[in-house]
Amino acid sequence: MAEPLSAVDVIRAKRDRERLSDQQIDWVVDAYTRGVVADEQMAALAMAILLNGMDRAETARWTRAMIDSGDRLDLSAVERPLVDKHSTGGVGDKITLPLAPLVATCGAAVPQLSGRGLGHTGGTLDKLESIPGWRAQLSTSEIIAQLRDVGAVICATTEGLAPADRKLYALRDVTGTVESVPLIASSIMSKKLAEGADALVLDVKAGSGAFMKTVERARELADALVGIGAEHGLRTTAVLTDMSTPLGRAVGNAVEVAESVEVLRGGGPADVVELTVTLAREMLALVGLSDVDPAEVLASGRAYETWCRMIAAQGGDPDAGLPVAAHTHVVEAEADGVLRSLDAYAVGVAAWRLGAGRSRKEDPVQHAAGVLCLAKPGDKVERGQPLLELRAGSADAVPAALAALVGAWTIGDGPLPATPLILDTLH
Amino acid sequence: MAEPLSAVDVIRAKRDRERLSDQQIDWVVDAYTRGVVADEQMAALAMAILLNGMDRAETARWTRAMIDSGDRLDLSAVERPLVDKHSTGGVGDKITLPLAPLVATCGAAVPQLSGRGLGHTGGTLDKLESIPGWRAQLSTSEIIAQLRDVGAVICATTEGLAPADRKLYALRDVTGTVESVPLIASSIMSKKLAEGADALVLDVKAGSGAFMKTVERARELADALVGIGAEHGLRTTAVLTDMSTPLGRAVGNAVEVAESVEVLRGGGPADVVELTVTLAREMLALVGLSDVDPAEVLASGRAYETWCRMIAAQGGDPDAGLPVAAHTHVVEAEADGVLRSLDAYAVGVAAWRLGAGRSRKEDPVQHAAGVLCLAKPGDKVERGQPLLELRAGSADAVPAALAALVGAWTIGDGPLPATPLILDTLH
Repeated sequence: MAEPLSAVDVIRAKRDRERLSDQQIDWVVDAYTRGVVADEQMAALAMAILLNGMDRAETARWTRAMIDSGDRLDLSAVERPLVDKHSTGGVGDKITLPLAPLVATCGAAVPQLSGRGLGHTGGTLDKLESIPGWRAQLSTSEIIAQLRDVGAVICATTEGLAPADRKLYALRDVTGTVESVPLIASSIMSKKLAEGADALVLDVKAGSGAFMKTVERARELADALVGIGAEHGLRTTAVLTDMSTPLGRAVGNAVEVAESVEVLRGGGPADVVELTVTLAREMLALVGLSDVDPAEVLASGRAYETWCRMIAAQGGDPDAGLPVAAHTHVVEAEADGVLRSLDAYAVGVAAWRLGAGRSRKEDPVQHAAGVLCLAKPGDKVERGQPLLELRAGSADAVPAALAALVGAWTIGDGPLPATPLILDTLH
Repeated sequence: MAEPLSAVDVIRAKRDRERLSDQQIDWVVDAYTRGVVADEQMAALAMAILLNGMDRAETARWTRAMIDSGDRLDLSAVERPLVDKHSTGGVGDKITLPLAPLVATCGAAVPQLSGRGLGHTGGTLDKLESIPGWRAQLSTSEIIAQLRDVGAVICATTEGLAPADRKLYALRDVTGTVESVPLIASSIMSKKLAEGADALVLDVKAGSGAFMKTVERARELADALVGIGAEHGLRTTAVLTDMSTPLGRAVGNAVEVAESVEVLRGGGPADVVELTVTLAREMLALVGLSDVDPAEVLASGRAYETWCRMIAAQGGDPDAGLPVAAHTHVVEAEADGVLRSLDAYAVGVAAWRLGAGRSRKEDPVQHAAGVLCLAKPGDKVERGQPLLELRAGSADAVPAALAALVGAWTIGDGPLPATPLILDTLH
């Protein structure tokens, strides 16, 4: 069969800093999915895109081509305003867990198709799987039924959505071409657009525990994401948030579920509550439900009821006890003073090494493993006071976790420079 | 087995504009040859090298790693000064054919391990295979015996030399990563250095019929080639030559052999004689034989005797008739005037389409096919005078060749701007 274009010509065009045409983008993404464009050709093109860039229109077209490589979810039968949320990932980022039932309680429907964790950031599905009986795999009709009935669903991405993205992401991972803003943005947005929501709020994180280490890079990604949303007619808001220190106190799987339940019951750490309510407000605003106050709904305990129904609908027992780690190890403060910083990346790596995360896709995670941050930046601490609690299946995992934590916090005097959690909001 | 380095780390280093360390280069070339570094990883690295460059020391080390991927030819038993020549390729470039026997006649030994043609430039082996009985494949002991006895050998590259280069070249060809000066230079020099000559003269061509279209790009390549030679202790000279118009009158296989024989017999086109003698002088100078005048040797007919012995030693009959094309088609001048230009690339493509070249490696070439340039730039022409003679196996091939020749020449008035054949010499 004759192909209308040649892979080498498309690669050369981007190599020589030309714009890719719509036809070139449509063909190369489709032909790669079909296996006509080889992995080595797509790898060379991905490197050329990483180094020479793609503009807003190219990135939007690339996103469309990835969506067109598979199915779109048709959620029109849900009959509620559909609003989705995506986080670029961070340490202790359990916000999806309280947020989805909260926004559903406020009147919208939240289809939260999620992934698993790899590396130092956890995966939403891994966290929920620490609840006995809960299952991540749902059929499309189960998703629709649950959205109609409960208003919120957190489940695994269905196989047929954006297969080009799945294939391309695996390739980028082994070819040093992950760190391209147009490729990151089109990867995120192709999946989200294929899910068929009416609106989307993005939590774009900046800091040591995030993929984007600086606010500048995070803003660049947020701009690209909002740009793709606009080109595709999706109402999109991006919230830039700080990820220099873990979110909340719990970092792991079962420990993050427990903290989320605290928040849904009207308690929990202030930063988790603040971010949950902020994102809920943005989501509700996008679908015309600004008159509902999510802070009030959260305090009322009604969102907790929705959580219980959401967990139960997927086979989980919301009242069951969560797994408990066999071994705990406490790390103490070495001086009196104020905890001035606690590094998100170091805590994420420690939790990962304790067994909360996986190194390879096929590895299992340990649901009870993780880190509890017993003090947060700004807290007064005394020498010998417990600072961190490490939890693991056995004491063997502790030394590697402690090694990751060397230099991870500072204790000093004087007032703490204010670091706001919410850095900016982009529409 | 644990590998000392990771492909992704090496790719990221070059992607982020870092210098590659000797250890990184040695490992990545070796691991790619062993199949541990995958094609898609080397493709991403090749694109990063193309866009971000390699400096002189990196390029020399990359060359060494490619040499170390295979064998080195040991020609020490030849007992004559060994001098090699390489051309970056052009249209009508048959210079190796008269040059090797000429330099051998002058006292040096010339091991000319050559390749086949692909695209619009011909291959030396394809040309010689139009001689009945001549064979390209020689064993190492046959090469040494012929160098001792005749002083010149033109044969196929032996399998074991620089296998990394062979694998990498095939990859670059399909991934849009051919046009990188460090990668082109290391590819050429790894093969030449593995051949074990004492000295090397490079004919680096610039113009429409060459790989490098501008003098600037050709000079950049020549600098890189001479730089690698210097880093490896090889006496190296690069001659920059014009390739805006075909060399000589004959473009093809058998027709180029016939023209080479004319030159060896003391006749032939002036440009072919000039370049042959210039390159011979540079080669002889590098091995301390400057006192011999190659122009005199060429005129004496003694180089022709060496040619006959060289062809006969490889089974060829130097007196046999060469293949003749079944079909000829003459293209006439459309006006009176001076032929002001004749485009090398267009003539090369026409010869290729007539059957002189191949599109895929496995295609055969037609030995009798080609183009004769009956007028050269600077010649006076009259309307209706034959300008080009196209030769092919059948008339079917002619229309595509004529299409390539549209606008390929200009006829005008007045004096011709002087374009020297030899543009510069670099040591």
